[in-house]
Amino acid sequence: MGGDFGPRVTVPAALDALKRHPSLSILLVGDSHIISPLIVRCDHGILERIELVHADSVVAMDERPTFALRRRQDSSMYIALQSVAEGRARACVSAGNTGALMVLGRGILQMLPGIDRPAITSAIPTVTGHSHMLDLGANVDCSAEHLLQFAIMGSVMVRAVERINSPRVALLNIGAEEIKGNEQVKLASRLLKEQPELNYIGFIEGDGVFSGEADLVVCDGFVGNIALKSCEGLSRLVSSKLKQSFTRSLYRRALALLARPVLKELQQQLDPGRRNGASLLGLQGIVVKSHGSAGSHCFGHAIDQAVSEAEMNIPARISERLERYLHDPSGT
Amino acid sequence: MGGDFGPRVTVPAALDALKRHPSLSILLVGDSHIISPLIVRCDHGILERIELVHADSVVAMDERPTFALRRRQDSSMYIALQSVAEGRARACVSAGNTGALMVLGRGILQMLPGIDRPAITSAIPTVTGHSHMLDLGANVDCSAEHLLQFAIMGSVMVRAVERINSPRVALLNIGAEEIKGNEQVKLASRLLKEQPELNYIGFIEGDGVFSGEADLVVCDGFVGNIALKSCEGLSRLVSSKLKQSFTRSLYRRALALLARPVLKELQQQLDPGRRNGASLLGLQGIVVKSHGSAGSHCFGHAIDQAVSEAEMNIPARISERLERYLHDPSGT
Repeated sequence: MGGDFGPRVTVPAALDALKRHPSLSILLVGDSHIISPLIVRCDHGILERIELVHADSVVAMDERPTFALRRRQDSSMYIALQSVAEGRARACVSAGNTGALMVLGRGILQMLPGIDRPAITSAIPTVTGHSHMLDLGANVDCSAEHLLQFAIMGSVMVRAVERINSPRVALLNIGAEEIKGNEQVKLASRLLKEQPELNYIGFIEGDGVFSGEADLVVCDGFVGNIALKSCEGLSRLVSSKLKQSFTRSLYRRALALLARPVLKELQQQLDPGRRNGASLLGLQGIVVKSHGSAGSHCFGHAIDQAVSEAEMNIPARISERLERYLHDPSGT
Repeated sequence: MGGDFGPRVTVPAALDALKRHPSLSILLVGDSHIISPLIVRCDHGILERIELVHADSVVAMDERPTFALRRRQDSSMYIALQSVAEGRARACVSAGNTGALMVLGRGILQMLPGIDRPAITSAIPTVTGHSHMLDLGANVDCSAEHLLQFAIMGSVMVRAVERINSPRVALLNIGAEEIKGNEQVKLASRLLKEQPELNYIGFIEGDGVFSGEADLVVCDGFVGNIALKSCEGLSRLVSSKLKQSFTRSLYRRALALLARPVLKELQQQLDPGRRNGASLLGLQGIVVKSHGSAGSHCFGHAIDQAVSEAEMNIPARISERLERYLHDPSGT
């Protein structure tokens, strides 16, 4: 029900995902009066893999997360997460209120033992393909121990989803040298080094995020969110300046028409939304957050991300790795 | 002497700046054996506005700043800063070791009363022109009080250099709402609100940096450095993907030739180096840091920035504003 467009986007995306994944079933949780008309003309083969779960209310995009947790037990978000907690669904995908999704996720699904807080992770385009980054805004004040937890969770996820045997993990910092950075990253670096199962490659600077030198970039949510949003802002600036440049004369307009396929390809390659689907790691269940502004195609990527995490059983894998860590923190 | 290219870049840039600014004189501080041959063929009108000051050594790009302060009193950086402290020069421009420039600047020029640490500020391209941002990496652990100091210094600088009567000041945060962010920015926001002379417009998110909604964006050096470097990384990624896209076929190569002026224009508009010249605010003197990789044209921008700050007498203006603040912190 959430995001900028609600069921107009999420339902068609779900129907397409059912076509792409023949063994997938989907629970559509929300106002059945709105959703029913959108699925009524489906093929029988698709329709029988849909379960419509009615919810009386919706968590508003600007609602306080703690209010949502206490008072919105009849909301689509609450019921969807509960269906994961009860084992009726393997994953929850939402384009709704991020803060509420985290707080409700934590309240309903519970954290994995050894993890204090969920972290938001997403794929980032690089020169060589893409890497992953976390935390992207779930945690504003992180300790070194939290950064270690993020590194463990992210490493397990990247290993499984990307099928990389030993993902290179880097800590985001303002310099590559050991003496650089604040106390939190310096201490985190020492903790990460002590983990023999982590392929920790050291500090990475902001520009290293896009260079492809790491498979996983770890940072606190304040820094990660601002870095990512800054880059989104720069992307928009580039688009707007390109438009200005290409409309300055008739000749340039003609050029723009010719170059359109190239520019469109570029935009798609760099669009963070193309690899839409941020995972909330650390919960005892799979929760994927879509951009609120995602169209049907992009929302489909978030569903694919959830499918992939369900197939890989990411929470169980993280849990297993954490158990070893909890029994032997130094990894020796 | 510093930066990737040393006098090969800085000397021609200085000569050009002397042509642009008829009332400017420049002290070239460094190895006179290297510099002399580079200026020997100048017009007499230029030559008489150059003073060559010999320095025996150079602070290396990877030298520890505290070592440089104690042991490099014969270095070009030390002597250049000392010439500002002694009033022989109005400003110092360097492409050298940033950390050393800060530590030497602080040691030789001293801080303005009421300012604890220098902050690095630079211009950032926006949809509508450009804005300014600080701190970009000088301070890794900032208190709310430091952020207030940055806001006061930056505001004075933007007002003078950009001739904006009441620059809009924003605090970088992970959300625009009051409840968002870490303790440091929440407290800083309260402090900024209490300053009637600051045109504080509230929190701004990462993407707001490029939207032009603020004239000055304030953040701690850890976050600012990572945001800026991330954007530089993204810029490089865009360039590399553009190159890939435009070389995929013969047709596209031809298109690239036609579109080259447009793409070059775009690259120049967005190049952080184009507005090269980061100011170290908070010192009792003007110090401008150029990108180490700047070419002669870009290094010229750093010189222009120093000229402009000297004309406006920025440190004195900041000092004046601070004195009022120190006598009446709440601004009432």
